[in-house]
Amino acid sequence: MKLLVDERDAKFVLYEHLNVEELCNYPKYQEFSRDMFDMAISEAEKLAMNEFYPTNRVGDLEGCKFENGIVRVPQAFHRAYQKYCEGGWLAMADPPEVGGQGFPYVVATCCIEFFGAANWSLCMYPGLTHGAARLLYRYGTPELQEKYMYKMFSGEWGGTMCLTEPNAGSDVGALRTKAIRNGDGTYRIEGQKIFISSGMHDLTENIVHMVLARIEGAPPGTKGISIFLVPRLRVEADGSLVDNDVTCLGIEEKMGIHGSATTVLSFGENGNCIGYLMGEENRGMRIMFDMMNEARLSVGMQGLAHASAAYLHALQYAKERIQGTPLEKMKDPAAPRVPIIQHPDVRRMLMFMKSGTEGLRALMYLAAYCIDRAEVAQNDEERELFQGYVDLLIPICKSVGSDLGFRICETAIQVYGGYGYIKEYPVEQFLRDCKIASIYEGTNGIQALDLVGRKLTIKRGQLFKNAWKFSRDVMAKIRKNRRLRDLVAIYDEAQQMLTETTKYFGLKGMTEEFYVPILYAKPYLDFFGDVTLGFLLLWQAHIADKKLQQIFEDHGAKDPAAQRKVIETNKSAAFYYGKIASARYFITQNLTQARGKARAIMSGDTSPLDIPEAGFALD
Amino acid sequence: MKLLVDERDAKFVLYEHLNVEELCNYPKYQEFSRDMFDMAISEAEKLAMNEFYPTNRVGDLEGCKFENGIVRVPQAFHRAYQKYCEGGWLAMADPPEVGGQGFPYVVATCCIEFFGAANWSLCMYPGLTHGAARLLYRYGTPELQEKYMYKMFSGEWGGTMCLTEPNAGSDVGALRTKAIRNGDGTYRIEGQKIFISSGMHDLTENIVHMVLARIEGAPPGTKGISIFLVPRLRVEADGSLVDNDVTCLGIEEKMGIHGSATTVLSFGENGNCIGYLMGEENRGMRIMFDMMNEARLSVGMQGLAHASAAYLHALQYAKERIQGTPLEKMKDPAAPRVPIIQHPDVRRMLMFMKSGTEGLRALMYLAAYCIDRAEVAQNDEERELFQGYVDLLIPICKSVGSDLGFRICETAIQVYGGYGYIKEYPVEQFLRDCKIASIYEGTNGIQALDLVGRKLTIKRGQLFKNAWKFSRDVMAKIRKNRRLRDLVAIYDEAQQMLTETTKYFGLKGMTEEFYVPILYAKPYLDFFGDVTLGFLLLWQAHIADKKLQQIFEDHGAKDPAAQRKVIETNKSAAFYYGKIASARYFITQNLTQARGKARAIMSGDTSPLDIPEAGFALD
Repeated sequence: MKLLVDERDAKFVLYEHLNVEELCNYPKYQEFSRDMFDMAISEAEKLAMNEFYPTNRVGDLEGCKFENGIVRVPQAFHRAYQKYCEGGWLAMADPPEVGGQGFPYVVATCCIEFFGAANWSLCMYPGLTHGAARLLYRYGTPELQEKYMYKMFSGEWGGTMCLTEPNAGSDVGALRTKAIRNGDGTYRIEGQKIFISSGMHDLTENIVHMVLARIEGAPPGTKGISIFLVPRLRVEADGSLVDNDVTCLGIEEKMGIHGSATTVLSFGENGNCIGYLMGEENRGMRIMFDMMNEARLSVGMQGLAHASAAYLHALQYAKERIQGTPLEKMKDPAAPRVPIIQHPDVRRMLMFMKSGTEGLRALMYLAAYCIDRAEVAQNDEERELFQGYVDLLIPICKSVGSDLGFRICETAIQVYGGYGYIKEYPVEQFLRDCKIASIYEGTNGIQALDLVGRKLTIKRGQLFKNAWKFSRDVMAKIRKNRRLRDLVAIYDEAQQMLTETTKYFGLKGMTEEFYVPILYAKPYLDFFGDVTLGFLLLWQAHIADKKLQQIFEDHGAKDPAAQRKVIETNKSAAFYYGKIASARYFITQNLTQARGKARAIMSGDTSPLDIPEAGFALD
Repeated sequence: MKLLVDERDAKFVLYEHLNVEELCNYPKYQEFSRDMFDMAISEAEKLAMNEFYPTNRVGDLEGCKFENGIVRVPQAFHRAYQKYCEGGWLAMADPPEVGGQGFPYVVATCCIEFFGAANWSLCMYPGLTHGAARLLYRYGTPELQEKYMYKMFSGEWGGTMCLTEPNAGSDVGALRTKAIRNGDGTYRIEGQKIFISSGMHDLTENIVHMVLARIEGAPPGTKGISIFLVPRLRVEADGSLVDNDVTCLGIEEKMGIHGSATTVLSFGENGNCIGYLMGEENRGMRIMFDMMNEARLSVGMQGLAHASAAYLHALQYAKERIQGTPLEKMKDPAAPRVPIIQHPDVRRMLMFMKSGTEGLRALMYLAAYCIDRAEVAQNDEERELFQGYVDLLIPICKSVGSDLGFRICETAIQVYGGYGYIKEYPVEQFLRDCKIASIYEGTNGIQALDLVGRKLTIKRGQLFKNAWKFSRDVMAKIRKNRRLRDLVAIYDEAQQMLTETTKYFGLKGMTEEFYVPILYAKPYLDFFGDVTLGFLLLWQAHIADKKLQQIFEDHGAKDPAAQRKVIETNKSAAFYYGKIASARYFITQNLTQARGKARAIMSGDTSPLDIPEAGFALD
């Protein structure tokens, strides 16, 4: 049984839902075909299962070691990382001129799901490298690219993003790392960064840091931040490598992702740390924003990857674990014991996990697909439209991916029962690994502020209007499907409540009570996520229903009994039936609560703000 | 600042909400007074803070060690355990004739919250001992009591409950441990038990196990289970201690509660393990059920204890951690940075934690108080009434306590941000420790089946009718409070929806669709929990509001501005205002969703049951 990703569902999203093979009609992807996509996915699955997955638990148990300024990753990671680089996976979706394979981003996203489900800690290393390499590709000089970029895209060298400082986390504008002009166009970097993932490790000889710093004399706050390439080893003109005065002061002991090195870095302890400006001075925040969508989608992918692995592990366990009798024989002690998947409460938990995982998968792949579509857009209008979808979806991907992913990991533990709590079984690690996703790359609270404070205000809500027009068009088709009528009715109501809540925010935002949308930003984001997942699952159910009806027709199954038989004996029918069941479960159990959620938000209750500090608890 | 339990709120529940000092009017507690309760609580707090709390993190890091059949608990636990025993805390609420202090159970419950918040792993040892000692007290012969019981109530010896076997977890009736009659009234015990908390450790010289086993020839299933006292060291007639052939085969590596030894025990490997029957043959399940309420309330207490500690830690952190500017100065980089408690999203998280923790506290203390009231009841009718409240509340305490407690721990991590994820800070341990509570002593799915399958069917729903009559009487008073009118309206609707859902279950249960209430048992339990917590918080708000109005009057504060000033300067006023805010937050944010939750349950959607196994994921 598959334990990482339900490949059938992944391909359903790619080829039956999003029809990503149509990307091959664009010049950019004309060299590709669905067969090539399938081959890549199949190879990713093999590498993930054979090399990544076996290192997941040992990586958790062994963790990273910090000794004499050196960080050692879990021993088993080296081989898997090597194979990953050899396969060219790191630059799978990057242009051939940088050594990439040029695949659509959505196909790479599917592959990332496999790798992430197998071992997220290990994925952190190439993931950070990729982000840094992309930044260099977009903002670096040809000389710097020549020196550093190719070795990053190949994975020979690592990369990081260095934002956080002890007093500048969410408040990045408060950072204190300094950049002093050397006069030759380079800068001397001085400062300390914390929580730097992959900041020091022994997977690669060199690590290229992208460091946020303030140039002396620059304005305070985010407006005075610049971004610098700061290699651990500097490439000199003659090609030799010179120590660049970047020191690792330690690593963090964490709840999870033990195999990922979270470092404290010090730059310029000896005054010899040289940084190279990326883009222009004081444009650091703008540049970071450009890179942020990829990084945040990646964190959403982490939630999906853990959810996917947690679901499939729990499913396997529920099929194999024998415990208890069937419902109708509860009082017969001699009744044969059955696999726990036969117990209604276990099935309910599995359906929760299934529908959530499939909803997240549809969401992440859709976001990636929109990035591709923005990339191949034929004109500015089209590009802007798809970029708008992306900008709107990203905070949802990041926040809902991490929160719902965590909830799904939690449910996997519950399915395992006592065994879920012990380290001998894999699911408790999924939960611990997943927890960080709601925090890094902007806490989920920050995502909510991004959605409500930025995305909602862009062009007076144009991003939202575009998304709702899109969903109306899709719904117009689904509306004709009589078999989904009850679900459409629930969805319509939920969508209407979301619109009302959004308008309420828009109005409040212009009054003295502008803090109400800020107070309720996170519940609003969650609600937005519900409606989005419900929409995607309903859309999928419609597609699946058409296919299922076709199978019934092919089998001449007209009455319910005959159709049931087809569902129970034909695997395709079972799959499509399962897709409809996912939508049915999610919509009847979750979207039914839309009115209540809207009501909670629009209560506008301000007790959290009104309560005096002493009211939280007496000192 | 207090970091374990908000003592002011604990005392509010005890003396302003439940008026537990009235228990002193009953002969059983006539020796006690509120002063004595306060003194005990104050001592518990000191012991918890000074001895338990400092051992929590070291216990997590050090864990238990298994070497040569011996289990060593974290070294630091010894001294704290010693002090706990010396203080007579283990038998605080037990009768003086067994060496107990005879306190009401509700007062002991308050003390347990302190100890549990400080170090739950350590609490496991006396907790299990207490359960076993109580069982011996109720079902043991005077001879066995003489030999074992007093040393258990004093904590000199430990105790356990041995139910689970590899293939008999939730399905306890499938157990295989055998008891063979020796002919002298004793039994030879043979079998293996797993997941036995405190099954072997070096805190005490001896451990007395209560072991579920089947006597040869007994019926299969739960009807043929008996319960035996099986000491590790047997007390011979001359008082000497003899090895009783109980072997520890190993301990589990767990996600959390590392300081609590979870053991695999083998009984009678050499054929020399003697067990002593408790009560009558084949009455083991009945006896276990008698003991179950205490055990399940204790697990609910674990959720509360972690929630309480997580909330207070997050609150302290939010008051101290400086990050970001106030909302209205967001665009001014020179604006002074503020403690994060000033950010709306952080306040919202804190209010969620506060209201949840206070709701759980009210729930647990109420359940304990009802146990006391059943104990001192003047007649059978009264006893039955209070016992009925207890029986109804217990699955709610256990399941909602563990689930909501976990959610509150999760939120604490979110408040801490990146720091919440690293082991240097305490909150990630709370989350890991808390997770087990939804699993042991009957998974939360089992709790839901208990509520729906057993408690709902007792005397055709009489337990529910009694509870609703009680809440109607309370609400009749609250209804007169105009300042809470909006909250009452939301509560009334929620209560009505719960009643409708309960009736729906009652009706469905009598049809062929009897599986629908079983499928939705857990969502129903959660919904029941929401309404219960909402009721308790609203009740508390009403009490607090009366006190707050009195304070306003005392200060001559008639208009809103004057009243606001009182709230901001008078600590009592701040506290009562905070109580009302808790109710306001919980009811506007949670009970508003009652209609949706009822609708989800009453959708009666059976997709989780209808989906064929292959529909979950193709093999």
